[in-house]
Formats: sequence, C-alpha cells, structure tokens
Amino acid sequence: MQTGNMLIAQSGGPSMVINQSLIGAVLSAAKSPAIGRIYGARHGIKGILDGSFIDLRRETARTLEAVAHTPSSALGSVRRKPTPSDCAAIFQALHRLDVRYFFYIGGNDSAETVHIINEEAKRARYELACFHIPKTIDNDLRENDHTPGYGSAAKFVACAFQGDDLDNRALSGVKIDIIMGRHAGFLTAASALARQNPDDGPHLIYLPERPFDLDRFTDDVKKVVARLGRCVVAVSEGISDDQGELIASRFIKETDTHGNKQLSGSGALGDMLAQVIRTRAGISRVRADTFGYLQRSFPGVVSAVDAREAREVGAVAVREAVKGAVTSGSVAIRRKTGAKYAVTYAVVPLRHVARETRHMPSNFINRAGNDVTQAFLDYARPLVGPLPKIGHFRQMLGS
Amino acid sequence: MQTGNMLIAQSGGPSMVINQSLIGAVLSAAKSPAIGRIYGARHGIKGILDGSFIDLRRETARTLEAVAHTPSSALGSVRRKPTPSDCAAIFQALHRLDVRYFFYIGGNDSAETVHIINEEAKRARYELACFHIPKTIDNDLRENDHTPGYGSAAKFVACAFQGDDLDNRALSGVKIDIIMGRHAGFLTAASALARQNPDDGPHLIYLPERPFDLDRFTDDVKKVVARLGRCVVAVSEGISDDQGELIASRFIKETDTHGNKQLSGSGALGDMLAQVIRTRAGISRVRADTFGYLQRSFPGVVSAVDAREAREVGAVAVREAVKGAVTSGSVAIRRKTGAKYAVTYAVVPLRHVARETRHMPSNFINRAGNDVTQAFLDYARPLVGPLPKIGHFRQMLGS
Repeated sequence: MQTGNMLIAQSGGPSMVINQSLIGAVLSAAKSPAIGRIYGARHGIKGILDGSFIDLRRETARTLEAVAHTPSSALGSVRRKPTPSDCAAIFQALHRLDVRYFFYIGGNDSAETVHIINEEAKRARYELACFHIPKTIDNDLRENDHTPGYGSAAKFVACAFQGDDLDNRALSGVKIDIIMGRHAGFLTAASALARQNPDDGPHLIYLPERPFDLDRFTDDVKKVVARLGRCVVAVSEGISDDQGELIASRFIKETDTHGNKQLSGSGALGDMLAQVIRTRAGISRVRADTFGYLQRSFPGVVSAVDAREAREVGAVAVREAVKGAVTSGSVAIRRKTGAKYAVTYAVVPLRHVARETRHMPSNFINRAGNDVTQAFLDYARPLVGPLPKIGHFRQMLGS
Repeated sequence: MQTGNMLIAQSGGPSMVINQSLIGAVLSAAKSPAIGRIYGARHGIKGILDGSFIDLRRETARTLEAVAHTPSSALGSVRRKPTPSDCAAIFQALHRLDVRYFFYIGGNDSAETVHIINEEAKRARYELACFHIPKTIDNDLRENDHTPGYGSAAKFVACAFQGDDLDNRALSGVKIDIIMGRHAGFLTAASALARQNPDDGPHLIYLPERPFDLDRFTDDVKKVVARLGRCVVAVSEGISDDQGELIASRFIKETDTHGNKQLSGSGALGDMLAQVIRTRAGISRVRADTFGYLQRSFPGVVSAVDAREAREVGAVAVREAVKGAVTSGSVAIRRKTGAKYAVTYAVVPLRHVARETRHMPSNFINRAGNDVTQAFLDYARPLVGPLPKIGHFRQMLGS
C-alpha cells in the first residue's frame, strides 16, 4: 500500500449526483491509513495548474452530506484536455503537495484526461495512482451498464414529459422537446418512461443513433396528429442526417477544446423543427421547448438508485486505488443478471473508457427509428425509480 | 337557495394545481343539496358548444384525489372568447342539461369569458349563477393578493435557479433564463428566492414592468462578470422596450383569439439576448434556456400552500354560489395582516377581475429596474414554501 496525499477534482458537465461521488471518495479516503491530506482542486485540472485547492478534511461531516445532496460540481468544473506541458506543470504541483493518488470525476473526455495524465506520469516517472470516477447524464461510457448521473437526469426528463403530455392533452397541438445527449440517445429515450396509458406521449422519439430526415419526421407527426389530434415529440439535440452531419450544426458554431459542438443553451434546433411542422404539415399550434441545463442541475428530482450508486463508485475508486492491485483505471458499473436489479463494480483500463462513446444498442430502438422498445424500458426503469403518480378522469381517457 | 345542475370547466394555460380547484369545487358541490348533477365540460366553453361533457359524480373518490394531485387541466382547456352567438348556443346546451350553476377556472381572460356569459345570460333571461375560480401562474389577477398556480410555478422557477446558479458556478459564463409572464413579472421575480449566499444568482432580473434596454442590459451583465467572473440572468418573456413594444415580438408572430402574442414554446428571445452579450460584451461562453411549459406542468414540484389554497378557492366558489347572496363573482384571495401568513377569501364582481392584469407594485422592484426588493421576497416566500437545501464547501464560498 502506497502512502501519500490525495487530490480529487470534477470535470465536464455537472450532474445531479456528481457530488455524491466526490463525497463517497472523500469519506472512503478519510478512513484509509494510506491517505494523508485530501485536496480538492477547483475547476478540475485548471485548479491544479493555478494552484487553487481546498483541504477537504477541513469540511465538517454535515457539510459533506449537504454537498452530497446538492446538484452540480461543488469543486467547480472545467472542459480542458491537458497538453504534455500541462502535464509537466501538473506533476510539479502534485509533487509539491506530495500527492500520490489522483481521482477525476467525469465522462469520457475526463477519462481521456486521466488516461493522458497516467501515461505522462509513467513517462515522467512520477509515481501516481490515477483513477477515473464515472459521471455522465448522457449514459455513453463504454464498459458500463449505465453511468451515475443518468438515472436522475432521466427521471427529470420522464417527469417533464409526464407534465408536458398532460399540458398537450389540455391544449392540443404539436409539442417538440429537445433533450441533451450529444452522441447517445439514452436520455432522450428516457422520455418514454412517462407513458402510462396507450395514448400518452411522447408519441415519437428521435435519437442520434438513427439518421434524421425532415420529410420522414413531418410524415410521422402528421400521422400521430391524424390519429390523436395532438403529438408530443422527444428529439435528441444530437440528431444527425444520413451524412452524419448534426442537424443543429446548421445553426450553431461554438466548440470546446475537445472538439465538441456546443448544443445546449440554445433553442435553435427546436425552433427550426417547429417551423418545419408549421409550414410542411400545415399545423398552426406548434411549440418547442429545449430542456437545457435543468436536466443536469435541477435540485430535488433525484433517482435514489442513482444517488446510491454515484456515492459507491467514488468509494470503490478510493478502495481499489489504496489496495494497489492496479495503479490506474476507471470504475465501471455492471448489472447482475437476474430478475431483481443489482450491480457490481469493476475497475477497467482507462483507455477502454476514454474518449469513445457508447451508443444505444439496436434492440433498444424500434425498426422505424422513431421510438424505443420494451427492452429499453426494462433497462431504464430501475435506474430511474418511481415517478409521480398521474391521475386522469376515466371518462377523459376514453375520449 | 336555487337548485339545479352544475357545470364546471377549465380554461387558459394549465397550472400545477388547477385540478385542486376543480376537485375542491366538485367535492363541495357533492355535499350540497342544491346541486344535482355535476357536469365537466371538455376543453372549456368548446366542450359546451360541442356537447362534450363528463359526469363528475361517476368518478371515484380515489380518482378525484389522484386528479387533484396531477398538474395541467384534467378536463382539457381552451383559449376562446365567446361571441354573442356562442353564448346563445351555450344557454341552449345548459338549458338542455338543466344547468343553473356555472364555474369556470382560469385567469383574467377566463374571467372575461364568465363576465360575458353572465351578462348575456341576464340579457337572455337564463337564470344562471356564474362564478370564476382564479388560476394563473402569472399571478396577475386584480383584487387578489396572489393567485392559485403561482406558488407552485414560482417554486419550480426558484428550484431551477438554485440548480442553474450551481451549474454556472461550476462552468462559469453568462447564463440567461427566460421565464413565463406576459405582462407581470411575478414569476420571473421568484427566481430571486433561489439566493442564499451573497454571490448567488440570479444576479440580474428583468421584468415587464420596466422598459428593457439592450445597452443597459449589456452594461449590467458586464459589471457582474467583472465582479464575479460569471452572471446568471432572469428575464421575463414579456420584457418590452420604452415604447411598450415586446422585445420578443421582433421574432414571434402568432396570436390567440384574446389578442395575446404567443411567447412560450420558442427559444428566440433567449437566443437573441445571448447573441447580444456575445457580440457587444465580447463574452464567449453565453447560454440561454427558455423554461417553457415545464414551469406550469412539471409534476411533483408543488407548493403545499398553493395546493391547499387552490382547493379552497374551488370550494369557496361553490359554497358562495349555493348560498345565493350573490349570483355571480370571482373568488379572490386576500392576505391577512400580521406576522403569520394567513388568507381569507372574498367574492368580487367579475368585471373587477376580467381582462385587465395586475402588475408588480413599484416597491417590489429596485430603482435600477434590474432586481427585486426585500419586500417582494417577504411577499413571495410564504407562497412558495421551503426549497431544496443546498450545500457548499465553506472554502468554495470564500473564493
């Protein structure tokens, strides 16, 4: 067992439970004789480079619990990929603090950051245990059955569609909702969990995994409106045409240093799709909402399973690092087979998780490419947990 | 005490507690010997004209309670102002059903509908008790201290800003959130309830009650960014320039039959304001979210006070109608003076509530016109109730 200080940080887009992972790791480290000081870097590797740290042992148990139950990244976050010269500066900083354990909570870009730091540390002969702790509302990390952050964001999306479908029943028309998920449709797909009755929305679901075609989209909406007199549509921000070109990129230009297009924080895609339905389908009442950052940061709508697992992946990362059987890796969630939902945790090589994204498997998507399957619902339901109970007059459902 | 059947319907934009008012009225009517059948019209006056009714006595007590706790309008809604010939057709329909009690749940446009029906009924010598039951998330009904629906929508907005401010702390930049409220800023103002610490957002709040100027807005944002390195802004969809022209109307054309511009269901205003900050203030990370319909229909985020009062205004309307001291009116909520929050209910003439909107009083808005005052916070806090607890590392707040 290597002894030394530890540094932990958060990176990428916040989630509702990323602080559970942070606190899980901190509480696990506090119990380990191998770990001395517990530093938190502000805003990910930016804090390491700027020398901006906090001493997490100085925070009270009560504060730690309050932070665990608070959405977003309590240490601040960053979107930055370290260069070789960043890494040299990082090792100098870590050396000064005698840090021998490094934990980084984030998605696949963050896993890539850990992978780079781990490779550069070996090259620089700086002894450092490097662990990635998974987090992403997109649910797109390879090697994982699902990722912390997804269940709670999926719950928000499912609740939002429960409400939006009720709204659309009251004042009918076409309603288009744009949901986060750059490459993977898992979060958009979670909208289907809102359905309880045969004619409940969302009636159509469009995912990045299938090419999006404006004519087919228009036809699909017209058919639903002809049948029900209304239509609620879930659309991923990441939908692309058959050339793989983002539909949204026709309007949006900004990119981050990982080369990702900025899709959220703009209503352009939804407004464009609404305009298409107005003009091509000749339907007058068409509205679009873009759920935006509420999906990842809204407080109080948390999946209990997600919160528990998020805490656990943090704790597992520290336990495995201290054990020392491997000196680097990413914690992955695996689902046990069997009727009852249960998971185990594994440590997998960083390069298996870094950078690349996992997509919705084909058996989760219907043939027409405009809905999910029962297999997806069975997969997602235990991650989200119970939703608010919705009441209808029996005589209204018959109509 | 007049005896006869009763008809109830819902109109205008849904809210999270409009069904509480419906069920409050139905349960109160079910106990009254004056009332025979209890009809619900589907989609407001449209259902009366179409002959589309349900028999609310046929629904079980359990269904009634489930519906009460479900957002949106369980009977369906409509935005339609009755013409004199509509009224004639309405009285024929009501006569066929022997309806002598008419209740309509909605905002100021719905109050106008009740007022028109009441006046036309007198002219047609059709004996009908006409009562308006207040509902609007905009909180803009005259004669009322506040309106059912506001507290819950305000809670959603306050929660959303809690989360969004945490998100903005994690990944800094300028974040602009567009909030519902066509003429009155009460809902946008509720964003201020999210603040707990001195540098918590929203840092700027723009209301329809004050002229909006793009240059002043840009300067305000630049100042906050210079001080905090970030800025969260709450903007009402109803902001207008010094000529009274809606800023959003530069992008949006659709109107309803009451002559209202359709503002929600589009991200155009937020995207435009974000673009202004990017170009005029030279800030690169600027995002805009438009909260949209989630504010009025998201399930599970309800103010307990709001739910209770929403049920009560429905019950009061029926009790007062059956009592017969007045044959028409609108139920209004009045706040008792004193340290402890408490309300009473009054019946006021329909014309006092119809059509016109109530605005934020001047003492609720700061001098610069870009924030609310302590008086507003004291006014709004009891209507919203407790918010999710937010935890921060003490060392992060000091930064």
